[in-house]
Amino acid sequence: MFLDASGSAPMTNRTLEAFHAGLADGWADPSRLHTESRRARQLVDAAREAFADVLGTRPEHTHLSHSPHTGLERIIAGIFAARRGRDRIVGTAIERDATLLAAHHLAGGNVTTVPVDTLGHVDLDALAAELAVPDVALAAVQHGNHEIGTLQRLDQVAEVTRSANVPLVVDATASIGHGASPEHWDALVANPADWGGPSGLGIVALQPRTRWLPSWPEGDDWAPGGVFVPSVLAAAVALQERTEQLESTTERLRGLVARVRATAATWPGVDVVGDPDERLPHIVTFSCLYVDGESLLSRLDREGIAVGSGSACTTSTLEPSRVLASVGALSHGNVRLGLHPGVTEEQISRLLALMPRVIADLRAEAGAPEL
Amino acid sequence: MFLDASGSAPMTNRTLEAFHAGLADGWADPSRLHTESRRARQLVDAAREAFADVLGTRPEHTHLSHSPHTGLERIIAGIFAARRGRDRIVGTAIERDATLLAAHHLAGGNVTTVPVDTLGHVDLDALAAELAVPDVALAAVQHGNHEIGTLQRLDQVAEVTRSANVPLVVDATASIGHGASPEHWDALVANPADWGGPSGLGIVALQPRTRWLPSWPEGDDWAPGGVFVPSVLAAAVALQERTEQLESTTERLRGLVARVRATAATWPGVDVVGDPDERLPHIVTFSCLYVDGESLLSRLDREGIAVGSGSACTTSTLEPSRVLASVGALSHGNVRLGLHPGVTEEQISRLLALMPRVIADLRAEAGAPEL
Repeated sequence: MFLDASGSAPMTNRTLEAFHAGLADGWADPSRLHTESRRARQLVDAAREAFADVLGTRPEHTHLSHSPHTGLERIIAGIFAARRGRDRIVGTAIERDATLLAAHHLAGGNVTTVPVDTLGHVDLDALAAELAVPDVALAAVQHGNHEIGTLQRLDQVAEVTRSANVPLVVDATASIGHGASPEHWDALVANPADWGGPSGLGIVALQPRTRWLPSWPEGDDWAPGGVFVPSVLAAAVALQERTEQLESTTERLRGLVARVRATAATWPGVDVVGDPDERLPHIVTFSCLYVDGESLLSRLDREGIAVGSGSACTTSTLEPSRVLASVGALSHGNVRLGLHPGVTEEQISRLLALMPRVIADLRAEAGAPEL
Repeated sequence: MFLDASGSAPMTNRTLEAFHAGLADGWADPSRLHTESRRARQLVDAAREAFADVLGTRPEHTHLSHSPHTGLERIIAGIFAARRGRDRIVGTAIERDATLLAAHHLAGGNVTTVPVDTLGHVDLDALAAELAVPDVALAAVQHGNHEIGTLQRLDQVAEVTRSANVPLVVDATASIGHGASPEHWDALVANPADWGGPSGLGIVALQPRTRWLPSWPEGDDWAPGGVFVPSVLAAAVALQERTEQLESTTERLRGLVARVRATAATWPGVDVVGDPDERLPHIVTFSCLYVDGESLLSRLDREGIAVGSGSACTTSTLEPSRVLASVGALSHGNVRLGLHPGVTEEQISRLLALMPRVIADLRAEAGAPEL
């Protein structure tokens, strides 16, 4: 029972078939001249068209990187380099680590994070005030937040960045494949693993007008050494499948998420986090007072249920979630569900039936007061 | 008839099976805490052990990068950063573009390339003279050359670098899986696609004593955003398969290569390139006077034969080979064969029977004098 489909999800049969076809036809190096390589190159070109189509740009402005992380790094570096003389980067307080680390690295720490409200929406007045100072190279604003699910009002954000003449980099790594693609951006980064494609691949989409400079003296600025063609093909097919089924899937998952939010809100000492309406349809998160996040994950794992958490220390993060802290939510005892299209009503029922007992047990073990 | 197995090769059935197993069991993000992720992490750990075993180091010193290119970039950057105060990089004249571009980028152009002789061996006296100046951060020396097949005498090279106390970075991206792994290095980079694994993956092996500093403020210094676990598993199985069959395959391919070299040497106006003995067993290259490289490739491609060439302008290189120029070989009309273990005696016979007519036709078309 896999309920951690945020950044990764099991592949569907159709995506797996695409992968197998890619392994058979796309193993050759697409940069060479012979038939085998041309075939691989054609697969990549077709995939770039499919990505561009969904993202709303042209294939020649759609680039493949080695991961969403490197995509964010490279485009932030590229736009920063093209805006020579402007040396500050502005982001929201709930951007991904990859974005903020790249920004700090490039701007030598000259980074401003704009606060968000308790639902996770960026403070537009504060953003406008920061961009009014003419030293800003770029603004980085997420589309959907991977932890709390809140969707930014990107039309309003883009009005602010446009009137300040500051390029807008949109991290759409948690939203593409889960709803309409955002329309207002100068650069956008997407993550195929998040929509059921393979990991180890990122997509960077640009507008024709977007100016950037290569940050490395190489022919291939986006993925030095190339990408794995079968992965590219599988990512495109996975996105196509998600897009075709978007309406029915979204409605169904939105219903499951609403049910989790309503039920969890009735449990004592539990905070449900993020905007109730303007949100990703498949992400839902809540925090439990007096409960240790890692113990919660382990306990659910032993019950055969995989969930995520903003308060667990994993191999990649050693601190509880900065995002939860930014919206003023409890950063301990956090459970994050990411629902892939295969998740059923029954699975959610089982989780909801189990949770109150799990929470009570863990509180009792920790000697917490009754709530 | 695929004779361009240098940097890429079709996967064997056993490798494809490993890939499929990886897609089933290794799709989850290995950095999370639940069972699905732990399973993915176990696959990665087992693969790192397999790589470490073949490369002669320990798993904890064996890192995965997004490609051999990024592996070379990251380890050259890492060692360069750890050698603060020494700001020059020394390489051989026939290193890969990725190595020399990374070196130029990091050292601000302060790069010295040491010449090689007509067989492709680095001039050891010249190398020692460069390293005698105490401003050298690191020396980059290939193991096997991907274009001409020559194997460097790394034991002698390492004597020079060791006595100068300069770290030795060995590009083994063309040699691992084709013979004994080199023994003398401080850092080594390998390419799974070259031994029949997937592309989009690089391996960086270090010695316990090797000092490096992260060049990016992140937890994951080698592959930001992670690698694709099924690829890692397939790469390990492909290497294992190659290693098991190494002796018999090597001997057979060495025989085919010797046959190509001997036959091509009898064709008028054809130069056979690289060391006849100290060489990779599966790479063979020759250059044809008065013949255009791209026409040659296209003609063979129409005959159903895929070969490589150091003189073709591809999407990734716009100039004829620097390597061929460095050994004083003709850089036009070049044909490079890379023989994967499935290549047969009959395929080579067909190529050798065809080549003299192809060369003669292309010379006639170009109005070249008879030879």
